[in-house]
Amino acid sequence: MISEKMKQMIGSSSAIRAMFEEGKRLAAERGADKVYDFSLGNPNIAPPAQVTEAAEKELRECKGVFLHGYMSNAGYEDVREKIASSLNARFGMNYGKDGIVMTVGAAGGLNVVLKALLDPGDEVAVISPYFGEYRCYVSNFGGKLVEAAADKDFMPDPAAIEKALSPKTRALIINTPNNPTGAVYGESALKAIARVLEEAQSKYGSPIYLISDEPYRELVYGGVTQPYVAGYYRNTLSCYSFSKSLSLAGERIGYIAVSPDADGYDELCSACSVATRILGFVNAPSLMQRVAADCIDVPPDIAFYDSNRVAFEKALDDAGLEYVKPQGAFYLFVKAPDGDDLLFCQRAKDKGILIVPSSSFGVKGYARAAYCVSPERISSSAAAFAELAEEYGIKKRAGVDKTHKGE
Amino acid sequence: MISEKMKQMIGSSSAIRAMFEEGKRLAAERGADKVYDFSLGNPNIAPPAQVTEAAEKELRECKGVFLHGYMSNAGYEDVREKIASSLNARFGMNYGKDGIVMTVGAAGGLNVVLKALLDPGDEVAVISPYFGEYRCYVSNFGGKLVEAAADKDFMPDPAAIEKALSPKTRALIINTPNNPTGAVYGESALKAIARVLEEAQSKYGSPIYLISDEPYRELVYGGVTQPYVAGYYRNTLSCYSFSKSLSLAGERIGYIAVSPDADGYDELCSACSVATRILGFVNAPSLMQRVAADCIDVPPDIAFYDSNRVAFEKALDDAGLEYVKPQGAFYLFVKAPDGDDLLFCQRAKDKGILIVPSSSFGVKGYARAAYCVSPERISSSAAAFAELAEEYGIKKRAGVDKTHKGE
Repeated sequence: MISEKMKQMIGSSSAIRAMFEEGKRLAAERGADKVYDFSLGNPNIAPPAQVTEAAEKELRECKGVFLHGYMSNAGYEDVREKIASSLNARFGMNYGKDGIVMTVGAAGGLNVVLKALLDPGDEVAVISPYFGEYRCYVSNFGGKLVEAAADKDFMPDPAAIEKALSPKTRALIINTPNNPTGAVYGESALKAIARVLEEAQSKYGSPIYLISDEPYRELVYGGVTQPYVAGYYRNTLSCYSFSKSLSLAGERIGYIAVSPDADGYDELCSACSVATRILGFVNAPSLMQRVAADCIDVPPDIAFYDSNRVAFEKALDDAGLEYVKPQGAFYLFVKAPDGDDLLFCQRAKDKGILIVPSSSFGVKGYARAAYCVSPERISSSAAAFAELAEEYGIKKRAGVDKTHKGE
Repeated sequence: MISEKMKQMIGSSSAIRAMFEEGKRLAAERGADKVYDFSLGNPNIAPPAQVTEAAEKELRECKGVFLHGYMSNAGYEDVREKIASSLNARFGMNYGKDGIVMTVGAAGGLNVVLKALLDPGDEVAVISPYFGEYRCYVSNFGGKLVEAAADKDFMPDPAAIEKALSPKTRALIINTPNNPTGAVYGESALKAIARVLEEAQSKYGSPIYLISDEPYRELVYGGVTQPYVAGYYRNTLSCYSFSKSLSLAGERIGYIAVSPDADGYDELCSACSVATRILGFVNAPSLMQRVAADCIDVPPDIAFYDSNRVAFEKALDDAGLEYVKPQGAFYLFVKAPDGDDLLFCQRAKDKGILIVPSSSFGVKGYARAAYCVSPERISSSAAAFAELAEEYGIKKRAGVDKTHKGE
C-alpha cells in the first residue's frame, strides 16, 4: 500500500520519537511519577513572557488579513530585515534581508537547503555522532550521507573530514552546540573546518557549503562561548530555530541565513525561496514569524538548563556512570558500561528511564539523555540511575545510599 | 552552485507566485490603486472573530510548555479527535483520531501523502487543468504526473481518466471545488470517478488512492453543494486546509483524513506520521492546531466571496469577456479572446491587471483570476477589463461606457 522507501523508513524510524511515544505509553501504564523520560529535546520551560505578550499584541494590533495571510515564500520583509539586523549587530555580519529565508524550524530549513543544493547521487558529509534525522533529510533528495568520525573528545577531526570529502560533496553539515554530545566547537575547531573545506574547494574546483544547524546556538554553560560559525567560512548556510531559545519547538519557526559572500548568493536565495514553496511549506507560519522577530533579542533561560545540567551530572556521578561533560545544548551523552548501547537503553527502560541509544546517532556505546526536563524528573530519577549502574556491577560513588532511597 | 533540478524549477517557477511578486513591484511603481492583482488565492477577509478569540484563549489558559511544545508528529490527540468527530457528524463518516494527521496546510498534506505512497517511477494522475504545484509535489518523490483532460465543461471525463491509469498508477489527485476553474464535482461525477478507479484497481491488482485536495470544500455558490468526496470511494486520502475557510493561509494549518476502510489503513496512518517528521515539517504548528480545532465548525464567510463573484461576473460580462461560470472556490477562468493565454496575461498586465495564464495549470487558452480580493479591487478593475477586451476588438456589452470611466 505504501512505498517501498517508506516501508524502510518506518522500519528504521526515529528511535527518539519511538522512545517518546513509549514514554507516553509507560506513563499511562505505570504512572507518570515512575517514568523518567529523557528522550526528546522538548523544552520544559514555557516561552519567556515576551512571547505571549508579542503574540497577544500581534493579534490585537495587526490586521487579520496581513497577520494570517500569505506573504512572499521567504517570509515577511520586515521580519527578515529585523533578523538580518540582529545577526549583524550580534555577530558582526553583513546579512541583507534577501539572505534570510523564514523556515518551518531548523528541520524545515535543512530540507530547504538540501533541496536547493542536491542532485541525486550528490554527497553530504556529517561528523559522527550526528542527529540521525540528517540521514532522512539527505535521502529525501537522493543524496548520499558520508560520515566523518569526531575525535575522542567528540570534536571535529580535520583529517577525517578531509577523507569524507570528494568531487561529489556539496556540503558538510555541522551542529554546534552538538546534539547528541553537548560538545561546543570553538574558534580553533571552526578554523580547522574552514581550512579543510577551502582546500577541498580548490582541489575539486566547486563550492562546498557548510550547513550550520544551530538550534542550540545560545545554550552554552560554564563560561564556554559559541563563536558564530558563518564568521569563519564564506560559503555558510546557517539554519536556526527558535524551538529551543524561545521554547517554541511545536510552532515550527526558524530561518536560513545565507552568508552574503557565498558563491552563487542570488541563486541560493532564490532557490531557498522556491524550495520552501515546492516542498509544501509555502512559508513559515505567519503569526510566529512576527512573534519571533518581536522577540529576536530575548535571551533564553540558560540558568534553568544549567542548573539541570549540574543536577544531572551529580546524579550520574553519584550512580557512578560515565558521560561526556556537556558544554552546550541540553544533552548528556552517557557511556554504556559494557559498550552495548541498545541493551543499556533497554535496561534503563526497565527502570523507567527513557534514553536514546547512540546507534541512532551513528556511533556505538552511548545513550543520549535530554535534560530539558523538570528539575523534579532529574532528582527523582537519581535512584533509578543508581540501580541501573548497580546492575552493571558499578558501586555507588557518593551521596546516594541505594538501600535507602528516602522510602 | 545550486542543483540542476533546482535550476529547472526556478526557470519554470510558479507563474502565480511570479505574478504576486510582480504585483507588489507594480504597486510600488504605479501606485497600489492602479494595480488590480487577481494572482493569488490569498483570502482578503480577516479570519472570523472566533479565531482571534480562540488564539487569545489558548494563550491565556493553556500552559506554554504544552501549547508551544512538541507533541506526536501527527498532532495533538484531542485536536485530531475533535476533527474526526466533526467530519463524522457532518459527512456521516467513521474516522478515528488515528486517521487524522495534522499538516502544514494542504500543500504540506499533499507532500506527506505522496511521500507515503510513491517510489521513483510511480505515476500519479491528475485532471487538467490542475493546480500547477502538483507537478512539483509529484516530482519531489520521483513520481510521474499523467494528465487526464477534463471535458468541455471542465468536469471529469471518465474515459480520459481510465486512459491515464496504468499498473504504475498509485493515485489520482482531484480538487473540487476546483482551482483554477471553479468547477464543482457533484455526485454523478464522483460516482463515475469511483467506478473508473475501482475497475482499474481490479484490473491492475493494486490499490489506487484518490487524493482529494479540498481547501475549498465549503466555498460553493448559488445553491450548488459539494458532496463529501471520501464518501464515494473507500481508498480516499482527503487533504484539507483551513487556509481559505478560516482565512489562515499564512499559518499553514490543515490535515489529512485517511478513510477508515482504506487498504493498508494502519500502515498509511503510520507512513503519514513518519513522512511529516522526515520531510522536516515535524508537526503542524501547535497553537494553530488548537485554534483550528476550537473553530472546527465555524462557517466561512461565503457571502463575501459570493458577492465578489457576482460583481466580477458582471464586470466581465460588461467588458464582453467570456469565462467559465464558477460554482465554487474563488477563481474565475477567463477565456483568452484569441486563445493565446500568455499574450492575454501580458496585455492584462499592461492595463495593471494581474491574472495567471492557464498554461501553468496544464491547459491553453485561459487565465485564472482569483476574486478573493476587496470588492473595491473588483469594481475599480472593471474599466481596465473593458479596455483589455476592446484591444481584442470586443465591443462593450452593457453598463460600462468606456469613453467615460467616471473621470
